[in-house]
Amino acid sequence: MILSDREIKRRIEEGSLVVEPFTEEDLSPNGIDFRLGEEIADLENNERYSTDREVVLKPNSSYLAITLQKVEMPLNLIAIVTLKSTWARAGCYISTTVIDAGYRGRLTLAFHTGPKEVKVKKGTKIWHLIFIECYPSSGYKGKYQGLETLAFADFSRIA
Amino acid sequence: MILSDREIKRRIEEGSLVVEPFTEEDLSPNGIDFRLGEEIADLENNERYSTDREVVLKPNSSYLAITLQKVEMPLNLIAIVTLKSTWARAGCYISTTVIDAGYRGRLTLAFHTGPKEVKVKKGTKIWHLIFIECYPSSGYKGKYQGLETLAFADFSRIA
Amino acid sequence: MILSDREIKRRIEEGSLVVEPFTEEDLSPNGIDFRLGEEIADLENNERYSTDREVVLKPNSSYLAITLQKVEMPLNLIAIVTLKSTWARAGCYISTTVIDAGYRGRLTLAFHTGPKEVKVKKGTKIWHLIFIECYPSSGYKGKYQGLETLAFADFSRIA
Repeated sequence: MILSDREIKRRIEEGSLVVEPFTEEDLSPNGIDFRLGEEIADLENNERYSTDREVVLKPNSSYLAITLQKVEMPLNLIAIVTLKSTWARAGCYISTTVIDAGYRGRLTLAFHTGPKEVKVKKGTKIWHLIFIECYPSSGYKGKYQGLETLAFADFSRIA
Repeated sequence: MILSDREIKRRIEEGSLVVEPFTEEDLSPNGIDFRLGEEIADLENNERYSTDREVVLKPNSSYLAITLQKVEMPLNLIAIVTLKSTWARAGCYISTTVIDAGYRGRLTLAFHTGPKEVKVKKGTKIWHLIFIECYPSSGYKGKYQGLETLAFADFSRIA
Repeated sequence: MILSDREIKRRIEEGSLVVEPFTEEDLSPNGIDFRLGEEIADLENNERYSTDREVVLKPNSSYLAITLQKVEMPLNLIAIVTLKSTWARAGCYISTTVIDAGYRGRLTLAFHTGPKEVKVKKGTKIWHLIFIECYPSSGYKGKYQGLETLAFADFSRIA
């Protein structure tokens, strides 16, 4: 089952799912909007930009960003990260990402622009997470556990 | 639970899920193929093209299209939009989109071409929707509700 | 429900889900990593490369690859293919693909590079499959059933 807005709120209030900061304004009918955190990096040159001021993202370019919110996923839920539909309509795209049961931390997520430049700043709603129930998992124990800052790709265990 | 072909057909027949027009030919083992409607727009210049005749889509370009079918989603189902695998094999891609419980209308969906041009016209099967059960949701009440024509991105509530 | 690592292992051991070859090393908390098979093709010129040696993939390019593993999906499960998050952090992306209930064979999957070249070879972990329960489906009977080698797009039934 996919969690509804009410069910997400209930689980956050009971503490079995942690999303911080959480405001009801970020709830969608079946998920939570995730916001841009304080840093975004251009993947062509690895240059990092503070999002305290508005950042202009070039057309047809790839970026890596940290989310504002952090999560603590229980062992019986996964999350799937998609793009808010407004960004998709503007030609932007992401590669859908799965957040494993048991993952804790902020999310480092890629974001690709389409044929036009777009502007973002800290707090901009970019992503949409839905939460799906799973059989009890042994839980995430990987190399990105607990990270709170933007982490570039670590290929040490890919092969 | 994901709906199967039989379960989708049953729910459409009982009226709890609306997909119009619906033909069994569009059913896949676990979803419904969605077809291109009468308009597609080039996202670089916002030029719109009628799909009454075949439209040649340029390589490595981004388009926005309206679907032929409209949906009326119940409050206990979401849909996830992916690309038919044949288009993905041809190098095309989309950013996976979630259709919220309670959404009504046609879908405005982006479509990105790969290294080769492709041809489409009204009725071409492009997308594949799967339907997943969710806890009863308060339902979609957003700015795209009820739209039946191609709608460009509206950034008025993104920040 | 999404299958957990334990539940995936249990179903593979009982034979209701087939993934071959299967090693516990490929299990993630909620899915299985899928590895590159012996061939990858450049979608711009359809040139095929053997992965027995390391292959350098050009930046901002589209490839089609065959997986090392084959699957036999039961009628009550679908799989969703996403990219391992390390590749997404490196700017690569895929269009999320659904593997239908009843599909048998290896998977032919597209892979798009970002602003930097990347290197792959046979056995490299690229994709991440999650498995979701579905109502009993009539099962996949399409044109790619049973394929074990890289299959380019077949547009014969798309329109």
